[in-house]
Amino acid sequence: MITSLSNQKIKRLVLLRDKARERNKEGLFLAEGIRMFEETPLRELTEVYVSQPLWEQLESGERYPLIWKKLGLCMERDIPVEKVTEEVFRKVSDTRTPQGILFVGRQLSYSFEELAGKAVQRHKEGGRPPLFLLLEDIQDPGNLGTMLRTGEGAGVDGVIMSKGTVDIYNPKTIRSTMGALYRVPFLYTEDLTEVAELLRQYEIPIYAAHLQGRKYFDEISYEEGAAFLIGNEGNGLKEETAGQADVWLKIPMEGELESLNAAVAAALLMYQAAGCYRRKERK
Amino acid sequence: MITSLSNQKIKRLVLLRDKARERNKEGLFLAEGIRMFEETPLRELTEVYVSQPLWEQLESGERYPLIWKKLGLCMERDIPVEKVTEEVFRKVSDTRTPQGILFVGRQLSYSFEELAGKAVQRHKEGGRPPLFLLLEDIQDPGNLGTMLRTGEGAGVDGVIMSKGTVDIYNPKTIRSTMGALYRVPFLYTEDLTEVAELLRQYEIPIYAAHLQGRKYFDEISYEEGAAFLIGNEGNGLKEETAGQADVWLKIPMEGELESLNAAVAAALLMYQAAGCYRRKERK
Repeated sequence: MITSLSNQKIKRLVLLRDKARERNKEGLFLAEGIRMFEETPLRELTEVYVSQPLWEQLESGERYPLIWKKLGLCMERDIPVEKVTEEVFRKVSDTRTPQGILFVGRQLSYSFEELAGKAVQRHKEGGRPPLFLLLEDIQDPGNLGTMLRTGEGAGVDGVIMSKGTVDIYNPKTIRSTMGALYRVPFLYTEDLTEVAELLRQYEIPIYAAHLQGRKYFDEISYEEGAAFLIGNEGNGLKEETAGQADVWLKIPMEGELESLNAAVAAALLMYQAAGCYRRKERK
Repeated sequence: MITSLSNQKIKRLVLLRDKARERNKEGLFLAEGIRMFEETPLRELTEVYVSQPLWEQLESGERYPLIWKKLGLCMERDIPVEKVTEEVFRKVSDTRTPQGILFVGRQLSYSFEELAGKAVQRHKEGGRPPLFLLLEDIQDPGNLGTMLRTGEGAGVDGVIMSKGTVDIYNPKTIRSTMGALYRVPFLYTEDLTEVAELLRQYEIPIYAAHLQGRKYFDEISYEEGAAFLIGNEGNGLKEETAGQADVWLKIPMEGELESLNAAVAAALLMYQAAGCYRRKERK
């Protein structure tokens, strides 16, 4: 059992928690909680840490029998499972009321061409049209996680992020995805303009959420699918990026509001596009 | 200038920041930031505190001339404006990078009958139908603030909260409303069932966002308006509360998601109802 706050492993976990650079260097990330552990496929796990109080509950069969079973499977596969004191656990945990389990997982990796190809193929075969989210410099980890979560619900084919977007492996982002991290493909790009170029090659229309948009977001049928460009929370889209869009969309607003929350805007757009397809299918 | 961390006024501000009970006892709340100060009507302000560095910038005319002017108006009206050291400011501030201005404001108060009456009257006169949000035990301050913000955009007539909902004057909630706090009427109720009874008297249909809903949220025309019931983030609506709804609505979800974020669900519903009316008007 790890009992010392200055244990080298613990220090490394704190680095993985706090530093995107460290995470990217190792190709790993730190996550915590019963739910996230359940959602993580065994093949993506590299290390697991359990607090002593939770360990005792699991061992006695008092709580979470499936978690205990999964820990057994980890050990069978030589994935290290370590017990740590409650104090040590608190040091590494990112939450106020830690659940007692955290783990290191492998970062996921996707190729845009593969995602777009699959989406276009599905559409050709009569399935729903391609749906992408393009994010420029989103800063709030909770917003980003919520966009992945909503994206899964709407059936998004992928979330493409500018390199200035907050790290998707930030513990707060991971938590707010509610498991969508493993089910919604995503990737970072050096240059959203290049992604826009590729989208044009695949004939997927690009729409920008823009305060100066003239077309209402619910006036469009999205028959050929959609890639929605969403800008930074404070500043919106850069001019150059907004210039990549085929159409600027307006979300109507009553009152004196300057803008909607970025995750809310993304939700309205994705569900509008997904809804157009669903309503057509229902008829 | 207040220089001591143990100054009695400073201790009281910290209480107002952290304790809903203290806020409700005094009928006041604490808020901070340039934007919120700008948005707050003079008549709602009772005290203002400015950090020394910001004070110097304002005094020299280097930044925010309108804020300097508003501070002058406060002093003319005998609203106390005090300078505090940067260290003292940091102690009271709720943010990591404080902007240097915080203030105490009067809590707002609305009556449900007035809100419902006004909305029904507007509808009778050919305006848009009534739109309410009913929240049961929402726990995340950011979610609540986002719902007010989105509510303003969608044109909601009021947000009614169960008494178990997080305090709307929580500094994090205030920040995430982006000023909608002053423009969207809201109230707490001891009993959502009573509010449901009143809504029936006003003939405003009640819809519950419910995982077991059978009707899709975008299959309804919302011609008579809507009051949307949204439940707690983890547990959804209590059975008794859900039983108050005329219809349970389903928001379709792809993937393996259990639910959407509560603020996202509220946004989709409010914008759907508002959109039905707008699209009819456009024709």
